[in-house]
Amino acid sequence: MPFSATDHAHMARALALAERGLFTTQPNPRVGCVIARGDAVVGEGWHQRAGGPHAEVFALRDAGERARGATAYVTLEPCGLHGRTPPCADALIATGIARVVIAAVDTSQAEGAGLARLRAAGIAVEPGLMREPARALNPGFFSRIERGRPYVRVKLAMSLDGRTALANGASQWITGEAARADVQRWRARSSAILAGSGTVLADNPRLTVRLPAGEDFTPPLRVLLDRDLRIPARFHVMDGSAPTLLLHDRVIPAPAPVPVPEGIEHAGVAVDGNGRLALDEILALLAARGVNELHVEAGPRLGGALFAAGLADELLLYIAPTFLGDQGRPLMALPTLDAMADRWQLQVFDQRMVGPDWRLRLRSAA
Amino acid sequence: MPFSATDHAHMARALALAERGLFTTQPNPRVGCVIARGDAVVGEGWHQRAGGPHAEVFALRDAGERARGATAYVTLEPCGLHGRTPPCADALIATGIARVVIAAVDTSQAEGAGLARLRAAGIAVEPGLMREPARALNPGFFSRIERGRPYVRVKLAMSLDGRTALANGASQWITGEAARADVQRWRARSSAILAGSGTVLADNPRLTVRLPAGEDFTPPLRVLLDRDLRIPARFHVMDGSAPTLLLHDRVIPAPAPVPVPEGIEHAGVAVDGNGRLALDEILALLAARGVNELHVEAGPRLGGALFAAGLADELLLYIAPTFLGDQGRPLMALPTLDAMADRWQLQVFDQRMVGPDWRLRLRSAA
Repeated sequence: MPFSATDHAHMARALALAERGLFTTQPNPRVGCVIARGDAVVGEGWHQRAGGPHAEVFALRDAGERARGATAYVTLEPCGLHGRTPPCADALIATGIARVVIAAVDTSQAEGAGLARLRAAGIAVEPGLMREPARALNPGFFSRIERGRPYVRVKLAMSLDGRTALANGASQWITGEAARADVQRWRARSSAILAGSGTVLADNPRLTVRLPAGEDFTPPLRVLLDRDLRIPARFHVMDGSAPTLLLHDRVIPAPAPVPVPEGIEHAGVAVDGNGRLALDEILALLAARGVNELHVEAGPRLGGALFAAGLADELLLYIAPTFLGDQGRPLMALPTLDAMADRWQLQVFDQRMVGPDWRLRLRSAA
Repeated sequence: MPFSATDHAHMARALALAERGLFTTQPNPRVGCVIARGDAVVGEGWHQRAGGPHAEVFALRDAGERARGATAYVTLEPCGLHGRTPPCADALIATGIARVVIAAVDTSQAEGAGLARLRAAGIAVEPGLMREPARALNPGFFSRIERGRPYVRVKLAMSLDGRTALANGASQWITGEAARADVQRWRARSSAILAGSGTVLADNPRLTVRLPAGEDFTPPLRVLLDRDLRIPARFHVMDGSAPTLLLHDRVIPAPAPVPVPEGIEHAGVAVDGNGRLALDEILALLAARGVNELHVEAGPRLGGALFAAGLADELLLYIAPTFLGDQGRPLMALPTLDAMADRWQLQVFDQRMVGPDWRLRLRSAA
């Protein structure tokens, strides 16, 4: 174990700083940096917004002359190449930093580009301290870089007996205010919010982020799966109040049932064997646009399709302590199972009460 | 606030002692007693088994001569009348106890019978310290005495999407070993375990208690709702390995489809407007037999009927992190709802992980 307790403490602080960018760094990762001399922190910074300075630059500015001979703790490998800003590796070198401790290697750069540049300048470079939490802070960034698709978080709300609506479709509101406010924060950290036309037509949601005044966020892209262009222009998602991408069948029926309003971007996607817009193509398309975390507001069919295809990384599930009865609408449409051994096995990795409701986060147990 | 921190500490200890009788005191309540002189505990006892000595007697024996002038902390008002054992009030008086602090008044005796007897002997009697936890330790006893019916705990196990079995009925096992072991402890504390013929015919359960060797318990009464006497003698519940009560239609069809085996007690019950054995009559009958806590292993119809009738006091719900799909069997059959305002509202009052599964305890929010 080459890292000391002091190293851990400084990196934990750097992670906490990185988290301040949770709602604003898209499409960039959240990154934090601490400059320290022994136990003493002499500079702190975090990346705030794409196009703005990186975490290291803020921290070095904060440290000033005290950076010379100090250690920098960075949650992500500093960039070694010119991007929208000059490479951070050069900034660290120029200020005379003696040692750089890194949590996660940046797999978006050529292997070791940042590490190598620092080492070539004679700096002691030590990667791997608290790597897992650093990666967990940016599940979407790493998924996009390493798997070519966003990290997919499927949000669902249901009653205790697994129903998302009454038989007649009424569903507002199953969960309480606290849960609904909580959902806004998950939306805010996402690069995009996706819904199918079924959900849009049934509930007319806005799919925007509503946070308390003063809380900053980068407005997520609204992504609408509307194979047959059924969503009328009068619906909230077509109001132009947030960037919006409408995805439809590549072979648009002519004439299109509903013209796409001005200012709403749209694109065609292949239709798969189930008659559904091809989910893998959609995810690749979104990754290419820089979508890190994708928040899915799913109905039972879209949710079921994502899980059945193994494309849902996380289920964000709100459970209200209420019964809607066995006539209510099901959580998820899944193929009929014949044996218990074939069931979908998940794993709870986070659970808490949110007001009177309950929030679970689950991932596949496979 | 007339009670000191020392009083609270001793009563908390008495409650912990009472809990040792959780599995064994049926049909009596769980009761604990501490004899103390100031901060010093000089005697401890708890009620172990119906017919055996009460908590106060054990504690007084433990204290011996040190009981004189001491304070007794009892979780339930001492009995003032002769029952199967001489009144505890007399024992406290005889040993020279100076003060008796009581958590819950015993509503099964004539009002104040124990309190009055102690006071008449010049003892300072102070009821009401930690009354709520003392009552919560004996929900069934107080329910039986005060409402004329047992405390009804409905146990259900389901998948995350609210299904108790696959479409083909397969359900073993939804939850893991830890949850199934936990269920045994809830059975052990119950006076009776009730199941409908549908569940019995589908799963052939034993409805007995299996605890690790050396753990003592009073075997609960098996109660089978079998309106038409459909359960064959070869089923586990008919094996005579535990006291068993078979309830059927008061008007037994002649000849009965299946003869009730020797040694299985049976009784007729009225059939209600829904063609179901009348639940209120069953609960009154069980209360009259001394059933405190009733553990219900319910299928969707029995569970739904108990909740719909307002007769279920607690839902003990195990949730496995798995999906069984929308073709799976529902948790509870309930009337179709037309408005969200009509839904069944519950309240989570206890939640924890049990192995990979999750255990919720809920009660009606009304």
